[in-house]
Amino acid sequence: MTKKKVGVIVGSLRSGAYTRMLSRALPELAPELQFSTIEIGDLPHYNQDLETDSPPSSWTRFRQQVIASDAILFITPEYNRSMPGVLKNALDVGSRPWGKSAWAGKPAAVISMSPGALGGMAANHHLRQVLLAVNLAAMAHPEAYLPAVAGLFDENGALQNADTRKFMGEFLQTFDAWIGKVVSAV
Amino acid sequence: MTKKKVGVIVGSLRSGAYTRMLSRALPELAPELQFSTIEIGDLPHYNQDLETDSPPSSWTRFRQQVIASDAILFITPEYNRSMPGVLKNALDVGSRPWGKSAWAGKPAAVISMSPGALGGMAANHHLRQVLLAVNLAAMAHPEAYLPAVAGLFDENGALQNADTRKFMGEFLQTFDAWIGKVVSAV
Amino acid sequence: MTKKKVGVIVGSLRSGAYTRMLSRALPELAPELQFSTIEIGDLPHYNQDLETDSPPSSWTRFRQQVIASDAILFITPEYNRSMPGVLKNALDVGSRPWGKSAWAGKPAAVISMSPGALGGMAANHHLRQVLLAVNLAAMAHPEAYLPAVAGLFDENGALQNADTRKFMGEFLQTFDAWIGKVVSAV
Amino acid sequence: MTKKKVGVIVGSLRSGAYTRMLSRALPELAPELQFSTIEIGDLPHYNQDLETDSPPSSWTRFRQQVIASDAILFITPEYNRSMPGVLKNALDVGSRPWGKSAWAGKPAAVISMSPGALGGMAANHHLRQVLLAVNLAAMAHPEAYLPAVAGLFDENGALQNADTRKFMGEFLQTFDAWIGKVVSAV
Repeated sequence: MTKKKVGVIVGSLRSGAYTRMLSRALPELAPELQFSTIEIGDLPHYNQDLETDSPPSSWTRFRQQVIASDAILFITPEYNRSMPGVLKNALDVGSRPWGKSAWAGKPAAVISMSPGALGGMAANHHLRQVLLAVNLAAMAHPEAYLPAVAGLFDENGALQNADTRKFMGEFLQTFDAWIGKVVSAV
Repeated sequence: MTKKKVGVIVGSLRSGAYTRMLSRALPELAPELQFSTIEIGDLPHYNQDLETDSPPSSWTRFRQQVIASDAILFITPEYNRSMPGVLKNALDVGSRPWGKSAWAGKPAAVISMSPGALGGMAANHHLRQVLLAVNLAAMAHPEAYLPAVAGLFDENGALQNADTRKFMGEFLQTFDAWIGKVVSAV
Repeated sequence: MTKKKVGVIVGSLRSGAYTRMLSRALPELAPELQFSTIEIGDLPHYNQDLETDSPPSSWTRFRQQVIASDAILFITPEYNRSMPGVLKNALDVGSRPWGKSAWAGKPAAVISMSPGALGGMAANHHLRQVLLAVNLAAMAHPEAYLPAVAGLFDENGALQNADTRKFMGEFLQTFDAWIGKVVSAV
Repeated sequence: MTKKKVGVIVGSLRSGAYTRMLSRALPELAPELQFSTIEIGDLPHYNQDLETDSPPSSWTRFRQQVIASDAILFITPEYNRSMPGVLKNALDVGSRPWGKSAWAGKPAAVISMSPGALGGMAANHHLRQVLLAVNLAAMAHPEAYLPAVAGLFDENGALQNADTRKFMGEFLQTFDAWIGKVVSAV
């Protein structure tokens, strides 16, 4: 049986980001899924004037990767009680041009993370509101808010916290089932 | 008496944007304020790794323009039921590095616009949530949601709709008073 | 074939509410569905101390009606840029006691209405955020924001506006399909 | 000098609520302010048909208490990723009848609490969006999200956690200053 292809979009650009560390742990936590990261840092800010016959090549690359994915997993930090601008920009780029959204109808899931105590909840909910708008079918439960993330990884950036490994494994199993439901229902 | 300096941030990058047309009409609508546009289209996506002794020059330029403003006026379209990514990115850039936010404490106001019927209300409210987070003192009332914006301007991009001119004039008068209150209260 | 049972929850209590007028028009617009209104005005404010072996009878009645429905349709006005308190209370009552939510997993849809121009968009989105939280599977598209509702009905409260009748008919058809998808996928 | 009068609105109705415990600790934490609780549990659900010459007496009592307060402090739990229905109802009751809002222009602050890890952040932000709508001038910083609240109080319901006492004391001092600014600026 072919593994479902999950495109992973990481909301932080810095090289040592915890969101990126988590993305690297995914294949081990859910070997039944096939993960590939979809980069967003090189996407020019959305500008309709660039939506010509030859839009920026990174936009085209990004849209094709989204379309080639069976599902999308967002892993986001919180910047100023919302998602990072770079992540919202990626959502905007994928949603255009009008009538040709790359997102439409795909299953999705959201993980938010924070160094502090609150797990990026505000980012998580702003992001989910936008997922509704671009017609991604976001899994409602379980929710994934990971607080105090600095303590979850070892010095090599490997996810070492046992509770988080267990929770994330279950989260991804439920996501696997959600993908199946949404895809079969279409 | 010195006019209060209002930095204007426009959320759309396309050259024919209605948000930009509105920004051009401001000096005529409120001659008692001094408006200057603060560009955001050239700001690289926020990446903490770039926050070195010499960050991107556009970040520095942007932060200085914000700091030099007495108040900030946001004019935003709605992309996918939120603000454009490029606008959120500008808010993120201005809020860093930690402890040196360019925004802190300044008075602000929000105008949202849409070609459709709903006036960008979802963008307006996501933006206001972030303004709270970066500690900009957003004017609560009146709210400004401008729907059906294509009909408000003439073929040269001048704001011709009499009702909108009147409403915007009053909005800016109230903003002028709000700026005075917040600045004097500090 | 048995018609799908749609429980309709109306967010306004006044007798002449437009939300209630719309609820009365539903059977005619979508004869393929079976609608029944679930009243919320008599539900005491949620108070965990009342969650005894014999909770308020209206709570029990409400929960049973929700459980007996195949799907839930919310029709809400906007109060102060959110949903009415009485509607949020109904969502809270239905979600308890812990582990026995009446909502869990059911398909849902949202219609917001306003006398003004903006169609209750802020109420719509606050409500959708709560639907995610109580694990109702809200239909993402089409969205239904009905502005200027006073002009949609005749003097007897019948929905007369042809465009709205057409739009609502299509909305309910899509909802019918959504109910089928969610129910079969479980 | 007269102490500023702070009306305290508690979002949970159960007798052993942590939000209520915190409200009882306030006078000790900030003796420079005068606190009085404004009850909301007896307010009938808002219904415009009841807005006659003799509205429900509890509505009138509530509105008068709000009007008599210099400032409003909200202490809220989170129900289903938003504020409790009973709290939203109180906000609605206070905002009417049209043109006679009891809230208008007063300074306000928000504290959210949760037994779990996330401090009621979603409730906090939904509430703040509504505060903007009813034109309460909410203090932006510091934000107050109190997680794991069961451990903050002793067996008599007294606030014993030293860090929280310190934080809340500072929060209330800043609120005191905020009240002064907003009131003097009007």
